[in-house]
Amino acid sequence: MAELRVWAPAGLREVVPGDDLVGLLVGLLRADARERPDRAPADGDLLVLTSKVVSKAEGRVVAADDREQAISDETVRVVATREHPGGVTRIVENRLGLVMAAAGVDASNTPEGTVLLLPLDPDASARALRAGVAAAFGVRVGVLVTDTAGRPWREGVTDIAIGAAGVHVLNDLRGQPDSFGRPLTMTVAAVADEVAAAAELVKGKSDGRPLAVVRGLAHLVVDGDGPGARALVRTGEQDMFRQGSAEAYAQGWKDAADQASTTRADWGVEPG
Amino acid sequence: MAELRVWAPAGLREVVPGDDLVGLLVGLLRADARERPDRAPADGDLLVLTSKVVSKAEGRVVAADDREQAISDETVRVVATREHPGGVTRIVENRLGLVMAAAGVDASNTPEGTVLLLPLDPDASARALRAGVAAAFGVRVGVLVTDTAGRPWREGVTDIAIGAAGVHVLNDLRGQPDSFGRPLTMTVAAVADEVAAAAELVKGKSDGRPLAVVRGLAHLVVDGDGPGARALVRTGEQDMFRQGSAEAYAQGWKDAADQASTTRADWGVEPG
Repeated sequence: MAELRVWAPAGLREVVPGDDLVGLLVGLLRADARERPDRAPADGDLLVLTSKVVSKAEGRVVAADDREQAISDETVRVVATREHPGGVTRIVENRLGLVMAAAGVDASNTPEGTVLLLPLDPDASARALRAGVAAAFGVRVGVLVTDTAGRPWREGVTDIAIGAAGVHVLNDLRGQPDSFGRPLTMTVAAVADEVAAAAELVKGKSDGRPLAVVRGLAHLVVDGDGPGARALVRTGEQDMFRQGSAEAYAQGWKDAADQASTTRADWGVEPG
Repeated sequence: MAELRVWAPAGLREVVPGDDLVGLLVGLLRADARERPDRAPADGDLLVLTSKVVSKAEGRVVAADDREQAISDETVRVVATREHPGGVTRIVENRLGLVMAAAGVDASNTPEGTVLLLPLDPDASARALRAGVAAAFGVRVGVLVTDTAGRPWREGVTDIAIGAAGVHVLNDLRGQPDSFGRPLTMTVAAVADEVAAAAELVKGKSDGRPLAVVRGLAHLVVDGDGPGARALVRTGEQDMFRQGSAEAYAQGWKDAADQASTTRADWGVEPG
């Protein structure tokens, strides 16, 4: 590992519904390379794209008044809810398998009076950009599409990978030797999320640089499109935090009370 | 934001209990700067140190046979447990406020037959390295101490910041304008965790490079020691995932059953 370099070319105009996003991004990379030839896309580069511009190009925008309905439409399963002075925050699993507040529906960096839904298929968007860059520059890159999410137990949000193409999203180190020569047994690094985080540090949240280039991780780039970001999603049996603590507690209480009620009925005791 | 660069100098020897870790790391940076003068520590650099070497220098090593007891000793509160073929994994809040499997006690990259506990006070370790680098090189850097942790809902592990000095660990963007000129309302970026993730990509897990230098984020470096990584910990009322779903469900069931039992006793019904 020599050195990691991350930069985010400036100059992309505001993306609007129906835009040819791949064309715009190829143009952005081309313009940047004219000023900085060392930055021309190269084999092994990773391109990290904020999902917001994908959503905008796809026209995934709805009126703010329809926000609650939009969240419901994106929701597969409610994980937890929390009341606060401004209303109720729903933490849900959305149709992409992502557990996020408000299903990932977001009001920042969108036109006044509107909110933005997550892209329809971020893995497909990543594949399209990868193919577009291969066609335009003749190079093999990996692509990540990212969004911003909170985490249990930690303050603040970080960027994570919600779409991927041509890149190892998990770097399975199990079996490789540690510094004492023994095989690592537990370590599968979520490298796609780490790259998303690194890219966020240069893209920022509001300065019109939705694309970052990460150079120095060519070992993570693969020939085919790879597993996509869906491989980063942990659901079902493996998910020990399928419900918020309060929700799970309430469910346990309800189930026990229902059973007690049945038992009382069996005894001929009136419900209390 | 021009460009982010991240590198991890090679050549640190295995750290052993009682080592002057700050001295060793200053020596490492000095040797690296001799070969690559552009890499000499500079104002605004972030140094990102794997907690494992801090633990080793502190002698935080115990016999593997004492692992379960060590985990208990590090545990403030059990969040969830999961049985698997090799035993029981305990996900706990440890004395640093971190929620981690096995309280962060780790068997990789340690001498055979031993396990390593987390450092005693990672924020203090970060402050010491910051002061040592300031004294040796006359520069103002930020320091993060990192460990590797799993996350709910996501496969794979990422590095997070468990110690910090001289650096904004949370970048509060609330109130700054978005690209439409409206104030961002929700966004507090956990930049320290994002920097930890970026550094992991170059340090790796086993190749003897426990220190990474991150250049290009000088806006995150502060004059004083700052809040430390403790500010990243979310506990208590704000924590919606204080217990695993199964544990919370069982508690709800038990409490309801206890109440039903009391009610039955009030009715003169024998416990069923």
